[in-house]
Amino acid sequence: MAQELDHGRTNVTHGSRIDAYVDRYAARAAGMVASEIRALFAVASRPEVVSLAGGMPYVNALPLDLVSELVADLVTSRGSVALQYGSGQGDPALREQICEVMRMEGIEANADDVVVTVGSQQALDLITRIFIDPGDVVLAEGPSYVGALGTFSAYQAKVVHIAMDDQGLIPESLAQTIYALQAAGNRIKFLYTIPNFQNPAGVTMNEVRRRQVLEICRRAGVLVVEDNPYGLLGFDGEPMRALRADDSEGVVYLGSFSKTLAPGFRVGWALAPHAIRDKLVLAMESAVLSHSSFTQLAVGQYLATQPWREQIKSFRELYRERRDALLGALDVLMPPGCTWTRPAGGFFVWMTLPEGLNSKAILPRAVAERVAFVPGTGFYSDGGGARNMRLSFCYPEPDRIKEGVRRLAGVIEQELRLRDTFGTGSTPGHAGVDTPGPDLA
Amino acid sequence: MAQELDHGRTNVTHGSRIDAYVDRYAARAAGMVASEIRALFAVASRPEVVSLAGGMPYVNALPLDLVSELVADLVTSRGSVALQYGSGQGDPALREQICEVMRMEGIEANADDVVVTVGSQQALDLITRIFIDPGDVVLAEGPSYVGALGTFSAYQAKVVHIAMDDQGLIPESLAQTIYALQAAGNRIKFLYTIPNFQNPAGVTMNEVRRRQVLEICRRAGVLVVEDNPYGLLGFDGEPMRALRADDSEGVVYLGSFSKTLAPGFRVGWALAPHAIRDKLVLAMESAVLSHSSFTQLAVGQYLATQPWREQIKSFRELYRERRDALLGALDVLMPPGCTWTRPAGGFFVWMTLPEGLNSKAILPRAVAERVAFVPGTGFYSDGGGARNMRLSFCYPEPDRIKEGVRRLAGVIEQELRLRDTFGTGSTPGHAGVDTPGPDLA
Repeated sequence: MAQELDHGRTNVTHGSRIDAYVDRYAARAAGMVASEIRALFAVASRPEVVSLAGGMPYVNALPLDLVSELVADLVTSRGSVALQYGSGQGDPALREQICEVMRMEGIEANADDVVVTVGSQQALDLITRIFIDPGDVVLAEGPSYVGALGTFSAYQAKVVHIAMDDQGLIPESLAQTIYALQAAGNRIKFLYTIPNFQNPAGVTMNEVRRRQVLEICRRAGVLVVEDNPYGLLGFDGEPMRALRADDSEGVVYLGSFSKTLAPGFRVGWALAPHAIRDKLVLAMESAVLSHSSFTQLAVGQYLATQPWREQIKSFRELYRERRDALLGALDVLMPPGCTWTRPAGGFFVWMTLPEGLNSKAILPRAVAERVAFVPGTGFYSDGGGARNMRLSFCYPEPDRIKEGVRRLAGVIEQELRLRDTFGTGSTPGHAGVDTPGPDLA
Repeated sequence: MAQELDHGRTNVTHGSRIDAYVDRYAARAAGMVASEIRALFAVASRPEVVSLAGGMPYVNALPLDLVSELVADLVTSRGSVALQYGSGQGDPALREQICEVMRMEGIEANADDVVVTVGSQQALDLITRIFIDPGDVVLAEGPSYVGALGTFSAYQAKVVHIAMDDQGLIPESLAQTIYALQAAGNRIKFLYTIPNFQNPAGVTMNEVRRRQVLEICRRAGVLVVEDNPYGLLGFDGEPMRALRADDSEGVVYLGSFSKTLAPGFRVGWALAPHAIRDKLVLAMESAVLSHSSFTQLAVGQYLATQPWREQIKSFRELYRERRDALLGALDVLMPPGCTWTRPAGGFFVWMTLPEGLNSKAILPRAVAERVAFVPGTGFYSDGGGARNMRLSFCYPEPDRIKEGVRRLAGVIEQELRLRDTFGTGSTPGHAGVDTPGPDLA
């Protein structure tokens, strides 16, 4: 019952009430509106539906017996610390370990410049909080992570998208956009980029472009916020060198243990130039006082006592197999005119539908056929993405992925027949931002 | 080394750098400045110093072996949920249990109206986020909780203090202040109150005043934010009836497990009128996606399997003994002219020094004499509190409390001699807001 209310968002008792506070909220609250597709996703979470929508890592692959021992030991051996308040910046030992993790991507950092956050989502929130006045510009790839766009919008930023292709963000497009915006008097506060296995596009910025992006931003005085939750989950060879590895003063790097260990601990971090770090710590304390000592120490113990590099390798193998299942099924089953990206890591494939089709309009039919995806419009701030959908391969087993693609292909074929008969497929009932809940971000 | 840097906030390598981003921060970031007394508290955390400064609960009183088993079981039996993302509103079963906890204070609530937050500090942050535009007024007791004042300031609210006495906030003062502010065209967004064993004053609002405050706020259209971390930690009789128990539409109630269980899980909550709850969930998702499933489920398991009411009773006994130790020592040792409150629960005593003395100026001398407190100025937004100090009895053992008071009395006596000789005691070197770090809030 509570579960149902939790996802349903409306119920008879409350749904008809008038909001007595409607004229008292802050201006920023006007942008906080629940998406009307949420109710649909409540249906999509039923077991008979193959969800290609969620971004949930496959935590069942973890050695649960060892994690169980580890948290038990933590309470008996360090309970008085693990159960107590901690510092706003985060556990010092964990911050040292985080530097070791970042070294895998070429980053040499001091633990003093790391702030531990409640997932990297909170790092995004705090960075936006300290930099964005209403109307300030944030640059972001188009498409970009829905959770980041929601946060930028909550602080009344103006998001301007930068075009990308299968090699990531296009530097020429970045340079031109910055020039035009600055010439028009806009204050550009930062570029938000996910260089590796981007959410939702699945593409990776190549090395040459990384250098170009850093150079363009440095010259224009634009801070780079490098969000890298998937960087260690590449299927081919070594991790790419982080942008932060080549610019310690112009980049804020965001990392997370949600995909390489488990999201249930909510441990992420920001590595920032020192002055920005100072502000981040103060904003962190104002927001939550301090992160959970317990989960920070649990992650620290995991890193100290478990073969975490091996675990990441086994995650890579697991996700690679699922990526292969998804791409293989798409190749065989999707009707002509559909195209999609071929990610070399991470969780997501970005599909483009033929002309005349609308992914949001297709979603109800897809859910009725027991398959779910996230429509593309949620990943743009400017109404783009109507012909796109994000397909996640992280959570369902390979056979389920194939079955999901089979169902989805059937729905799209039907839509194409509709289009060919009537000139258009299903049309969406309404416009608006499509922000899925946290389990879909 | 990392620990030292963590608290010290400045070091030679970085301290001399110029902040390249100084002209790029948001307007709200201007209010985010580290207190100059933080460095002093780093010294105060040494074991030889008796800290009457911190608000840390005494978590060593918990049955650590049982908590250890509980978290181990949680991973083996429900690991795939505990380690995964959860809903933005919080675990549905925990929200039901929270309603049961609130029933002890006369609150009848639906779990659907509860939002689980990263400590009640985050609930404060989210409430402020959805209600406050720059310049809006927040009413708060004077003195009030330093962490709340910091958050209000971070959203550029104007805080107006309401006078209180040993029976809590004074309703006449509230009514007059509201009238004057509204007549002058101010937008008052809410009254922030800590009715039980207030932080820092230690006083409790009596029953008659509770009804008056609700009535005044209802008539004036002012939302009440009732912050109640200490309500179950009263030393005499049953818990007081919450304000929320008598007004479900005009009160947002904030609760926390930080003082009745452990702050290391960072589990707090807000109970809000339905429309506000909707906004809170969206703000929550924007801020952190979702709270840690692990710590939420750990708290839920604790409530489901452990005699938590008995544990709260034993905390009460523990803190009562420490309160008695503090008051007894103050009675015997403090020089004439010092006065203090006599709390019937919670963690704090509020002391007022004789004329001519300044608590902030005394702090360095006190720390040199191996005793620490929090100067009163941090608990006011308007420069008040110069003659006050907050003394916490929650963390040190009774004998240490007595020793701390002995040392503090000696310092104050010395200050009085200075005053009588030179006309004033030590004077503070600088003005400014004194915001202690999270372990002192």
